[in-house]
Amino acid sequence: MQAINAGDAMFALAHLALLRAPAEPARLLRAMRVFEQMCVQLTIGQHLDLSFEARNDVTAEEYLRMIEGKTAALTAAACEIGALLGGGDEATVRALAGFGRWLGIAFQLQDDVLGIWGDPALTGKQDSDLANGKKTLPVLYAAERDPRVRAHHARGGRPDSAEVAQIRTLIEAAGGKDHAERAAREAYASALAALEAVGLNNPAGQALRALAERLVERRR
Amino acid sequence: MQAINAGDAMFALAHLALLRAPAEPARLLRAMRVFEQMCVQLTIGQHLDLSFEARNDVTAEEYLRMIEGKTAALTAAACEIGALLGGGDEATVRALAGFGRWLGIAFQLQDDVLGIWGDPALTGKQDSDLANGKKTLPVLYAAERDPRVRAHHARGGRPDSAEVAQIRTLIEAAGGKDHAERAAREAYASALAALEAVGLNNPAGQALRALAERLVERRR
Repeated sequence: MQAINAGDAMFALAHLALLRAPAEPARLLRAMRVFEQMCVQLTIGQHLDLSFEARNDVTAEEYLRMIEGKTAALTAAACEIGALLGGGDEATVRALAGFGRWLGIAFQLQDDVLGIWGDPALTGKQDSDLANGKKTLPVLYAAERDPRVRAHHARGGRPDSAEVAQIRTLIEAAGGKDHAERAAREAYASALAALEAVGLNNPAGQALRALAERLVERRR
Repeated sequence: MQAINAGDAMFALAHLALLRAPAEPARLLRAMRVFEQMCVQLTIGQHLDLSFEARNDVTAEEYLRMIEGKTAALTAAACEIGALLGGGDEATVRALAGFGRWLGIAFQLQDDVLGIWGDPALTGKQDSDLANGKKTLPVLYAAERDPRVRAHHARGGRPDSAEVAQIRTLIEAAGGKDHAERAAREAYASALAALEAVGLNNPAGQALRALAERLVERRR
């Protein structure tokens, strides 16, 4: 109870921090709206993510909708609010929202690949996402194509390391890894294209490009 | 988990509703700040209230600080935001904030009296606050004056109806009921005085006076 209440306090304090940003009132109000809409999107994503735990029929499409809310909405709003408070024009604000959205998707898909094929010594994740039964894009894509992946997926429970290795091989054979990596690269390219559209060739634009590259190339 | 998430969604939707209010940007931003500061105050009040459950040494003073956060902050902000969005001048905004604050305190103290001496058929409360061990002002005031009330208070557990009747008599004898009723009346008078200070003699002012009277005179 105290933890929930402390979370509510932090939520209100985050709003107060945003309200202290030095910006003209109309821009600050627009930033507030972007922030609130993002919060609603986050709760939709969180709702989907929680509901997936109890389901065995989650589709790749539903998964992408979930990460739109849980990850992409957050990065999109962060970039859009930055553009708004930084005094960007309408085209820049929209471009940065698009950049942030695609960056969030690219980041999450890369995270999903690392969650199965990453080096635990680098990622710091003790367990493969497969051991935890997480329904990420590589798994869902493969489950739609290979009944053996689907069967594992539906069985639930906690697989041992031999089973994890076996299912990982099946997912790779069904194209789950390639698909997720390709989707991550495409999202990354879309993020860069959004930036290019407004030709943000200043230190801020370069920093965003470098951030995008680091997030997508990362191994940890 | 889904319930907490749904609560977060409603919190964000409440912000969006306020952001849709038709008001000039600077006023709307000020209303947002009042709203967020209220939310922080509510969490402080809620924190105190939760922490009181596990304590036997809560003072009347601490109790009043708790209801400042949990009740008065809410009614103060509701009135202040109404004045702001209704285009009130600075004196009216401050007066209505004060009115709301005192009204909240009066309402809560009246609620505490009804929680012990109210007619369950009217209040709809099945159990006396005494049966539930709630630490409201009449109890805390009496506990500071009569060791028997303090002993009951410290014992915890769920008293039966004979014990409830006995402790109620002790609280009355120690002046707990009179004290809370007097404090409620004083808070009510302060609420009206705040309104009078700006001479709000229009239908809105009359409606606020009528609301205050109804809340304090209520028996349910």
